[in-house]
Amino acid sequence: MSTSVDADFSAESTAPASIGVTRGPIEGSTKHYLEHHGLRIPQRRVHLTNGEHLDLYDTSGPYTDENADLDLHAGLPPTRQTWRRPDPVDGAATQLAWARAGVITDEMAFVAVREGCDVELVRSEVAAGRAVIPANRCHPESEPMIIGKAFGVKINANIGNSAVTSSIAEEVEKMVWATRWGADTIMDLSTGKDIHLTREWIVRNSPVPVGTVPIYQALEKVGGDPTALTWELYRDTVIEQAEQGVDYMTVHAGVLRAHIPLTARRVTGIVSRGGAIMASWCMAHRTESFLYTHFAELCEIFARYDITFSLGDGLRPGSIADANDAAQFAELRTLGELTAIAKSHGVQVMIEGPGHVPMHKIVENVRLEEELCDEAPFYTLGPLATDIAPAYDHITSAIGAAMIAQAGTAMLCYVTPKEHLGLPNRDDVKTGVIAYKIAAHAADLAKGHPRAQQRDDALSKARFEFRWTDQFNLSLDPDTAREFHDETLPAEPAKTAHFCSMCGPKFCSMRISADVRAAAVDLTLEAP
Amino acid sequence: MSTSVDADFSAESTAPASIGVTRGPIEGSTKHYLEHHGLRIPQRRVHLTNGEHLDLYDTSGPYTDENADLDLHAGLPPTRQTWRRPDPVDGAATQLAWARAGVITDEMAFVAVREGCDVELVRSEVAAGRAVIPANRCHPESEPMIIGKAFGVKINANIGNSAVTSSIAEEVEKMVWATRWGADTIMDLSTGKDIHLTREWIVRNSPVPVGTVPIYQALEKVGGDPTALTWELYRDTVIEQAEQGVDYMTVHAGVLRAHIPLTARRVTGIVSRGGAIMASWCMAHRTESFLYTHFAELCEIFARYDITFSLGDGLRPGSIADANDAAQFAELRTLGELTAIAKSHGVQVMIEGPGHVPMHKIVENVRLEEELCDEAPFYTLGPLATDIAPAYDHITSAIGAAMIAQAGTAMLCYVTPKEHLGLPNRDDVKTGVIAYKIAAHAADLAKGHPRAQQRDDALSKARFEFRWTDQFNLSLDPDTAREFHDETLPAEPAKTAHFCSMCGPKFCSMRISADVRAAAVDLTLEAP
Repeated sequence: MSTSVDADFSAESTAPASIGVTRGPIEGSTKHYLEHHGLRIPQRRVHLTNGEHLDLYDTSGPYTDENADLDLHAGLPPTRQTWRRPDPVDGAATQLAWARAGVITDEMAFVAVREGCDVELVRSEVAAGRAVIPANRCHPESEPMIIGKAFGVKINANIGNSAVTSSIAEEVEKMVWATRWGADTIMDLSTGKDIHLTREWIVRNSPVPVGTVPIYQALEKVGGDPTALTWELYRDTVIEQAEQGVDYMTVHAGVLRAHIPLTARRVTGIVSRGGAIMASWCMAHRTESFLYTHFAELCEIFARYDITFSLGDGLRPGSIADANDAAQFAELRTLGELTAIAKSHGVQVMIEGPGHVPMHKIVENVRLEEELCDEAPFYTLGPLATDIAPAYDHITSAIGAAMIAQAGTAMLCYVTPKEHLGLPNRDDVKTGVIAYKIAAHAADLAKGHPRAQQRDDALSKARFEFRWTDQFNLSLDPDTAREFHDETLPAEPAKTAHFCSMCGPKFCSMRISADVRAAAVDLTLEAP
Repeated sequence: MSTSVDADFSAESTAPASIGVTRGPIEGSTKHYLEHHGLRIPQRRVHLTNGEHLDLYDTSGPYTDENADLDLHAGLPPTRQTWRRPDPVDGAATQLAWARAGVITDEMAFVAVREGCDVELVRSEVAAGRAVIPANRCHPESEPMIIGKAFGVKINANIGNSAVTSSIAEEVEKMVWATRWGADTIMDLSTGKDIHLTREWIVRNSPVPVGTVPIYQALEKVGGDPTALTWELYRDTVIEQAEQGVDYMTVHAGVLRAHIPLTARRVTGIVSRGGAIMASWCMAHRTESFLYTHFAELCEIFARYDITFSLGDGLRPGSIADANDAAQFAELRTLGELTAIAKSHGVQVMIEGPGHVPMHKIVENVRLEEELCDEAPFYTLGPLATDIAPAYDHITSAIGAAMIAQAGTAMLCYVTPKEHLGLPNRDDVKTGVIAYKIAAHAADLAKGHPRAQQRDDALSKARFEFRWTDQFNLSLDPDTAREFHDETLPAEPAKTAHFCSMCGPKFCSMRISADVRAAAVDLTLEAP
């Protein structure tokens, strides 16, 4: 069996016929760079009508920089290629190994400026395994970012085609589109044809870390028959993806043979694709998962590229009924074992979490994950707080996501309105990203993140002062905010009008309130 | 000054030229009635393809009953006119007075069947003031419902026109539309012309309790000048609305003169319209709010009709920065005083709550409300967990709403995507209602409501068994779930296909999982 590489990235003949992505700054903003010892850290600068500005964390890469000269066929500039590259420590050329050795890498320095924190916090959190910086050396185009509970909560957007729908061009645009609206990482979950080529286009053009689930491609290589999988084929697939520059990989090594019977009485069995594949393999071969038995070898590969493990929750609950059950927590215990092994190889680790969990069972997930997995960053899919709203699962899951992030989850995997129903299109990707930016930001506020409330305060001040344009431009989605406003009051003067369509011109609580404030200040001064 | 009644409801000449509302059952369901001692309690029966069915709480009234003979000009049948009407107790003809006297009213009996609980629980919770049954005797068309933390979490949908937009016909359709998707009550917040007539159309045709904010209409009567308001004009407006059948009224009687200076340094001042109006009045007249000084008289009126107080939070925070501040909690303390006065008159009371609150400050709101207001049902607007997402505030607030309901809030006032930007249209109303059904249901699950998980389990079982049609029909919005699915797999056979567009036909985790389950059961049986 060979590793089937569909085509060379540079081969004209197999490149997408036409490819175009969204360019230009978000309304009201410009790209701004912080210079730091030769590093250029991007920010989004929102320009306000009162002459002030607010600088925001920016995930969108050069696509929102009007001055950037981009060529999708060539990929983004490989900026990190010129950065300092310390020697490996005990065979590991990883941020974890360097952090433990007291080395401050350029990636750590970049991240510290980006987060607005001391670089020693970055180094020490990475060294402790409480944070990861997913940065495969073969993905020099990426702008480093950090995932850990001491930092801003991050979000991931899944993209990728399937056997049924979508093209490479669409997926590249989804990547650009997702990062434009705030995705901190993207996962390419393609399962159809052209997996390799699709991924090549995405990685070369992605300013954010790219994650994959290598078992999906491995399965394609054996014609979709899980029982035909082998360790060797899987390993070769991992190396193929490692060479391409994949920054983190979901590995469902915690699905042990002994766990499978624990799922037998579930309402929704095993809903993770990777989990189902590995369970199927274990049962067919009546032996332990090759991902588990070969885990140390996998660590050696990951250590060479600095690929971060995202230890998959193959037995995550797929329904409220199955939340926090024996199967889920048995696997989590195994993920704890694997975390220790990975760290002993100097490999960075994060832990994937559910899924579908009612609100009162959410905090236990974080508590157990931290206890069993030595506080490795938790990376959860939602969770959905109820099963009853297909077509609105970006909302059911934003509720769970906000709560689990407040409790300590470091990165949230978005859910789009199409979850359970179909593959997300471009609009769905945006809706999912915005819903998750809301959840992440709500958690940042609740955790007292030092910068978070600045944006709320700036927007609310603009709202109170009837600076409509500023209110739009400070929001997560200026285009839609403006569009909704203009549906009822389209005339341009309304942008500065001291009223809106809810109450009309002669009856506005905000205006009355401004009058009240003026008078109340007098009252305060008058009071004894 | 006279109470301006725009037109008689029955006058042909002033009726909307054309009026039509959405009729017919929700996809996959039929109307079903439980018969109980002469009462007919509506349910929505979802018919499954496996021959089973699930009965759901139904707020939609006769509009979803194929056999109902409806005439919008005549209004719904005044069913409650024929129900037993016990004698007043100490002048109060209210559910509270009767509950305290040990009387089980038809309304209580109806509610108990509807909630699936013992009628004694209903009576005792109402008697304790921990629950309310808003049911003005002049609104005999309504189907009684209960608001209290011992029961299912309820949601309210705000509708109403303004000086800028909307017609009566649109508002009646919004009411029908909102209740179709699950609104338990509606509030008519009209502020423009034709306030009286709009409300008449809504009340006569509403199967759910109708709430209002009488100060809005009072302000219209004085040409929009808050300082021209008088107690007498306000009182007459309340009586006018009481006679029409308004079931609960928001009264901002807790905005005291002494509280106003506490808002002076806020980021967003006073954002409640009612609060701003009363603050403006107090300052202009340099005297205490007439709502506060005449509160006992108001109680006497409310007691005659059994109108429920919704004590307004006129000083609720309008931004994250202002959450849980001195102004907000000073008013809450006053609302506690007023609660005691209202209850001493036998009048039912609920307490309105914020607004904009970061997640870590949510629970304190419930704790204080229960402590200060003797556990009167809490009725909150969201709260929005962040300020930064105008156009998505149904999501920012669904997060806060789910959490505050889990903590004990009895009813959630929805927020639509148009919040802060414009008046909601029909689509926005639906989006807001669905987002809030999600929040309410998530809270019911978290609180362990005995019936809540039935629906999740039924839907998840359908999902696992590839009963696509059942999955759609059991969802909060079958139409949209089906539409999303059909975007990628439109062919009818796909509705029973054992795969979907996410993975494609040859690679489905659910199918693999079914195989695993079959085998795993064997493993379990084989295991020692």
